[in-house]
Amino acid sequence: MFIDRLVKRIQEKNSCVLVGLDPRLEYIPASFKEQYYKEYGKSFKAVGEIITAFNKVIIDQVWDIVPAMKPQIAFFEQYGLDGLHAYRETCKYAQEKGLLVIGDVKRGDIGTTSKAYSNAHLGRASIESETLEAFSVDAITTNPYLGDDCLKEFMEDIQEKSKGMFVLVKTSNPTSGQLQDLESEGKKIYEIVAEMVYQWSLKTVGDCGYASVGAVVAATHPKQAKDLRKLMPKAYFLVPGYGAQGGSVEDIIDCFNEDGLGAIINSSRDIIYAYMKKGKEYDENHFGQAARAETLIMRKSINDALMVKRK
Amino acid sequence: MFIDRLVKRIQEKNSCVLVGLDPRLEYIPASFKEQYYKEYGKSFKAVGEIITAFNKVIIDQVWDIVPAMKPQIAFFEQYGLDGLHAYRETCKYAQEKGLLVIGDVKRGDIGTTSKAYSNAHLGRASIESETLEAFSVDAITTNPYLGDDCLKEFMEDIQEKSKGMFVLVKTSNPTSGQLQDLESEGKKIYEIVAEMVYQWSLKTVGDCGYASVGAVVAATHPKQAKDLRKLMPKAYFLVPGYGAQGGSVEDIIDCFNEDGLGAIINSSRDIIYAYMKKGKEYDENHFGQAARAETLIMRKSINDALMVKRK
Repeated sequence: MFIDRLVKRIQEKNSCVLVGLDPRLEYIPASFKEQYYKEYGKSFKAVGEIITAFNKVIIDQVWDIVPAMKPQIAFFEQYGLDGLHAYRETCKYAQEKGLLVIGDVKRGDIGTTSKAYSNAHLGRASIESETLEAFSVDAITTNPYLGDDCLKEFMEDIQEKSKGMFVLVKTSNPTSGQLQDLESEGKKIYEIVAEMVYQWSLKTVGDCGYASVGAVVAATHPKQAKDLRKLMPKAYFLVPGYGAQGGSVEDIIDCFNEDGLGAIINSSRDIIYAYMKKGKEYDENHFGQAARAETLIMRKSINDALMVKRK
Repeated sequence: MFIDRLVKRIQEKNSCVLVGLDPRLEYIPASFKEQYYKEYGKSFKAVGEIITAFNKVIIDQVWDIVPAMKPQIAFFEQYGLDGLHAYRETCKYAQEKGLLVIGDVKRGDIGTTSKAYSNAHLGRASIESETLEAFSVDAITTNPYLGDDCLKEFMEDIQEKSKGMFVLVKTSNPTSGQLQDLESEGKKIYEIVAEMVYQWSLKTVGDCGYASVGAVVAATHPKQAKDLRKLMPKAYFLVPGYGAQGGSVEDIIDCFNEDGLGAIINSSRDIIYAYMKKGKEYDENHFGQAARAETLIMRKSINDALMVKRK
């Protein structure tokens, strides 16, 4: 199952750092982009090549110290077919390096349409009696606003193709509470979504004791994370909001269970553009090394805190 | 503004029928697909060509009797880059025929990520000092689970590039009520989303009196539609659920205002695969004509009901 593969890699790498790939052209070093603009002009083709090459450098630097990568598809989608080609190449390359890939796609729709998204991102599309893969990765993020019959459509691929999903429960953005924190019959909306996730998680528990259906629970709300941990004991948490978005080690520590498992902590900008803040230590020609250094720091911070928690 | 263009086309065509393009390979006539499989094998390339050609036949048959088309991107996305190429070609062809295109993408994410989706589907992506369009259409559907700062990111393109969005308020699927119908402080969640939409709609009111920020309100919940009409007087409703999903003319009539405006009614399967139920009248070689006949029937049913309502 997906979750067993994930936990195995977390233990092998002694790391629950999830590196997010949010390709932003304006943060990629000019000297790195130059050759592609020279060859392809200021085109989507050039951008696709730049993004793929940039991501490969990052992956080469972190593959041995993290269990998985999380490409954010929106940043690829904005560059059209070339951007999505880069998304696919990035995912493929990460998998070749033994990493799991969690596609941050936040899809979700009514029945048959959700199934088409599942075909696109987890499973295979049928062409008459044959099937082919489009953008399939190991797991994706999904949106719960349409309820269970939307989420249900992803279950076939999760169960039969050994894939995973992380359902948005509590997000990291400033207005996340506008709907998610509303109270209905004594429960917050995010708690009600957590109960949905809990039910789906029960159907996908692996040998490791955790489930291939998990939850997105932001680091920017530590108290809520603690409560949610209890509501979804078997669900793995994908935790955004660490670092650039304001979350600290203290904020994320309660996303873990006593066994030191239960959460992967995402950082995107802080890692992949670390060269921008490291100053003299790593210049723009060493953005990959800067990313590795930052990942090691993050891994150590979290592992140190986990050591204290497990004592 | 987008909404003025939409209302103008509704009045010109005397039609509030929104034809949904949900390309499903299994419903496209075998005789139509054959030549593409012969040329390209059972490949995504073949499927992309089939879908584009099929959609063009439908568009050719309905362009003069509907204001807009609604391609559902999930059904394209599952066929990878070739599928998304077909999405772009379909949108382009519809626009060349003078139709507006509403991309049913249901995107939504945290701040900068939502902005990337807006670049992808409404605006333009920046490549250094230049900009290019990826999949830009006239309007899209968006998901409100992350709150206002997610929706806000689409506003720049809506206001400056004359685009539109329809926010999911109440969807047509069986479990739509699971979160959307929950009550918090005397209001349903969908009513709270409706209030969000109302606020955004006020910022985008066009000469026609309606707004470029609208709402998805399903035909499968007629009583709720009536209440929502009052909560969002200036918002146009995109109404799914008519026909194949069970909604009738009676169910959708209260989505309209007294002026006979305020809603576009979507039908996908019932129109584009009408040949399957028309039997002898239109065989699979005349699926386009069947789609036109079905669209004319739907337009007349709704217009007749509107005539009664306006009396």
